[in-house]
Amino acid sequence: MRILAAQINPIIGDLEGNTNKILKAIAAAQEHAVDIVLFPELALTGYPPEDFLLLPHFIESVESHLKKIVEASTGLTVIVGTPRRNSDTMEKPLLNSAAIITDGKITGYQDKILLPTYDIFDERRYFEPCKDSKIWMIKGKRVGINICEDIWTDRDLIKYTSYMRDPVAELKPFKVDLLLNLSASPFSVGHLENRIRACSAAAKLLRCPVILCNQVGGNDSLIFDGHSLYMGRDGYLSNFAPGYTEGYLLADLSHTTGIKDLRLDQEEELYNALVLGLRDYFVKSGFKKACLGLSGGIDSALVACLAVEALGAENVIAVGMPSRYTSDASVTDAKKLVSNLGIAFKELSIESPFVSYLDLLKPEFADRQPDATEQNIQARIRGMLLMALSNKFGYIVLSTGNKSELAMGYTTLYGDSCGGLAVISDVSKRQIYQLARWINREKEVIPQSIIEKAPTAELRPNQKDQDDLPDYAIVDNVLQAYIEDHQSPEHIAIRFGYDLELVKSLVKRIHSNEYKRRQVPPGLRVSDKAFSIGRRFPIVQGWV
Amino acid sequence: MRILAAQINPIIGDLEGNTNKILKAIAAAQEHAVDIVLFPELALTGYPPEDFLLLPHFIESVESHLKKIVEASTGLTVIVGTPRRNSDTMEKPLLNSAAIITDGKITGYQDKILLPTYDIFDERRYFEPCKDSKIWMIKGKRVGINICEDIWTDRDLIKYTSYMRDPVAELKPFKVDLLLNLSASPFSVGHLENRIRACSAAAKLLRCPVILCNQVGGNDSLIFDGHSLYMGRDGYLSNFAPGYTEGYLLADLSHTTGIKDLRLDQEEELYNALVLGLRDYFVKSGFKKACLGLSGGIDSALVACLAVEALGAENVIAVGMPSRYTSDASVTDAKKLVSNLGIAFKELSIESPFVSYLDLLKPEFADRQPDATEQNIQARIRGMLLMALSNKFGYIVLSTGNKSELAMGYTTLYGDSCGGLAVISDVSKRQIYQLARWINREKEVIPQSIIEKAPTAELRPNQKDQDDLPDYAIVDNVLQAYIEDHQSPEHIAIRFGYDLELVKSLVKRIHSNEYKRRQVPPGLRVSDKAFSIGRRFPIVQGWV
Repeated sequence: MRILAAQINPIIGDLEGNTNKILKAIAAAQEHAVDIVLFPELALTGYPPEDFLLLPHFIESVESHLKKIVEASTGLTVIVGTPRRNSDTMEKPLLNSAAIITDGKITGYQDKILLPTYDIFDERRYFEPCKDSKIWMIKGKRVGINICEDIWTDRDLIKYTSYMRDPVAELKPFKVDLLLNLSASPFSVGHLENRIRACSAAAKLLRCPVILCNQVGGNDSLIFDGHSLYMGRDGYLSNFAPGYTEGYLLADLSHTTGIKDLRLDQEEELYNALVLGLRDYFVKSGFKKACLGLSGGIDSALVACLAVEALGAENVIAVGMPSRYTSDASVTDAKKLVSNLGIAFKELSIESPFVSYLDLLKPEFADRQPDATEQNIQARIRGMLLMALSNKFGYIVLSTGNKSELAMGYTTLYGDSCGGLAVISDVSKRQIYQLARWINREKEVIPQSIIEKAPTAELRPNQKDQDDLPDYAIVDNVLQAYIEDHQSPEHIAIRFGYDLELVKSLVKRIHSNEYKRRQVPPGLRVSDKAFSIGRRFPIVQGWV
Repeated sequence: MRILAAQINPIIGDLEGNTNKILKAIAAAQEHAVDIVLFPELALTGYPPEDFLLLPHFIESVESHLKKIVEASTGLTVIVGTPRRNSDTMEKPLLNSAAIITDGKITGYQDKILLPTYDIFDERRYFEPCKDSKIWMIKGKRVGINICEDIWTDRDLIKYTSYMRDPVAELKPFKVDLLLNLSASPFSVGHLENRIRACSAAAKLLRCPVILCNQVGGNDSLIFDGHSLYMGRDGYLSNFAPGYTEGYLLADLSHTTGIKDLRLDQEEELYNALVLGLRDYFVKSGFKKACLGLSGGIDSALVACLAVEALGAENVIAVGMPSRYTSDASVTDAKKLVSNLGIAFKELSIESPFVSYLDLLKPEFADRQPDATEQNIQARIRGMLLMALSNKFGYIVLSTGNKSELAMGYTTLYGDSCGGLAVISDVSKRQIYQLARWINREKEVIPQSIIEKAPTAELRPNQKDQDDLPDYAIVDNVLQAYIEDHQSPEHIAIRFGYDLELVKSLVKRIHSNEYKRRQVPPGLRVSDKAFSIGRRFPIVQGWV
């Protein structure tokens, strides 16, 4: 039996375009005498379709596009992810389904059993869970089919929720010959390894091969890394589709392929994921060119490198916006990076609008001392200039704040946070340095002086980030423990040997800056818990 | 039997403060020889507690605060909303509960059956539904207790979801003497009438009185209007607590009170709700003073009126920021309003920074014609000035965009959308005029000329909103039909007799401005479907 996992990159809601990708894969499968062609979860709509699912005319259109797929299924079995209307009377009118289509007819539907409703997932908002497990007879084989979350039989691998049912174990009595899984499993650092372990556990439990077809591509904040895989019945990886790009994985059950290792190092994974997320945000919305402020610091340097990789050097415009506090070293470093990357560079001094604002506000501010206000004005002039270029020339502005800064509120709202996409807003300061060194692994792309100097916003004389913040190593440890692991300040203080009051002050700072994070651009999610829809805290609160 | 519904205004997560409010109400109940004191849903944490529920140390603190309430319950029954840990092994570790506490002991818990997971509600993210319905014996009476959604037995009244169980009907076999409901039922225009109808239907179905205790207060975007009520067994309203403020409702089952009507007209409801939401955003976060840009147009005029009502005239600072395109009439109108309201007024001409930007960008823009870029620069200078005042003096900036503009993207990101709170972002242009006329019902507060003139952004010579947009009446009809009713463009075109291409272009405009709405401040929700967490659409999409 030959199975093709068609790892496609859909656009959310582009039913026409997604159907065409599906039809193309079916045609390829037909050419290569494949028995089953397998698509990702909700391949027809793209994942996550969000509230499009609530529009009745959207669902009607899904149904008519599915018909085209049915008509094209001559001579093979197509298994494609689609929402479908629930004919029983249930709480939610939809099921998250795999349509099983053979030779021009829908044989049936396998609906998703476990509906993730935690972190970024809201599936209970739309879907009713499937009640029964069943087996599908395809070309004489007993095939189990399940969807994404349903294959995570090793519960230690699932963070933030637990389930009462185990859809893999429910298949055991059926003596399954093969398990197929339709996934839209988003990227986070380390998640690929967990996904492989989940499939391995499922293969071992059922003593059968597993083929998982994962979505690939960036959809707003979410990045899907692909890496569709063919797991042998022994629980060892047999073959896989490429990561971070569309591709087909052909699995021939009668041939054993050698065990391959698809794991990259974590910096490369993270780099590839960010590049994919950035590229798809542009490609899928029809934009080509990005601009960003280049300060001479490491964050904007990293974003410039990612943008060049994603969009091409000819599509990246760097803007230097020096102020009276900008050091010569910063200007030199920025220009060196621009030259290394071969990108366009514009220089716009913010001095004149800065003076204009200070003059205008002088009567209002009277005898008040300079404070963060004057710093924010500088950052906001830069945001203004980038947005003016964006408006005039159709660039998307990339914002360059990192996760550690965003957590601490060490960013100016409507200033450096301006933009269409926050490229590294889920990347900690620690990871920023790791990525920079990884980019420089063969030759110096990011000037070494940028990596070595102490972080500074250069918004007042001789400013250093560490004047206003504890060491980033401390910030990052507290962030991880509080935000990802939900540990209490008391627990964190003991775990790392930090002063309790220091930990409490950082946790307080995280919550008191919620209002800023609510107004920043969408950021690419690369951790298990990003500042985004996956983390929902009130702005006004009395707990912290 | 005497029941006190204690309609409190909790702060989310302020367990200490909320417990004190609860203890105070218990003491009042004890003084007035009350048998049962009833609190709102999740009164201990405030509703909605969001991801605080995921923090184990938060739940531990909830439990220790509940103990204080138990200790205070001498001589009566306390029924208080609280999350509680689920001792059975279930998918979610928590239940949304009512703790029933009598004379120093917890008698038991009534858990919520229907967990709303639609629109703004995410209860399945946190809670497991209750399986069984039960009856509680209190002072010889057979008392049914349920929580918020559980009382909405009239299913025609629930938008956006359906349920398979009816917790009110499930109580019928128990021959209930009295139904108590703990609610955190958010305000939207017309929702109070529906809530009364739901309680009426429940009373009639069970042939018993119903007492509903609703939360009151603003929590970020959500406004809870209170209006706790006592419904007679005949389904007619017997008594109610005040709306939009804390209060106690004492219901004596042995006395029949006269039927009262608590309905206000819709303008007054809307006005009160916005004032409450605005006030609590400030009070609960410890801020006192607001500033806003006053353009001489109706939107900022309305927000100024609401702010004065909520915070007092002495706490509202209006800022006039005229440009070369500002008409004399606008300046005169703004000053007249300032004088009518008795608020502080600052005038800051944006001409000098505007010129400074134009000069700076001249070499970049070269031979390009002026377009929206130059208009956005003006709006962003105004945002910058308001934020500078906010940073220097600790004001919260109120943003003044309305729902129709926000839908159409007729707003400048980082410009007029700047602020801590979007006061009228869920109020349509039609409602803006209704509110303005209502405010002027006794004397002219908002100058009539502001109400009468054609809407204009005054960002280029002789600009009118209707140069860029269809008539607001058309926009508002399409918005309502598409956003609230989920109707297709085809359906909408037929329903209103509009040109299909026009409707499609408006729907397209709604979706293509999703990126802007993602970065605006939280807005007070006053409709059934606001632009907020209750409406989840991708930015990059291929459907529209």
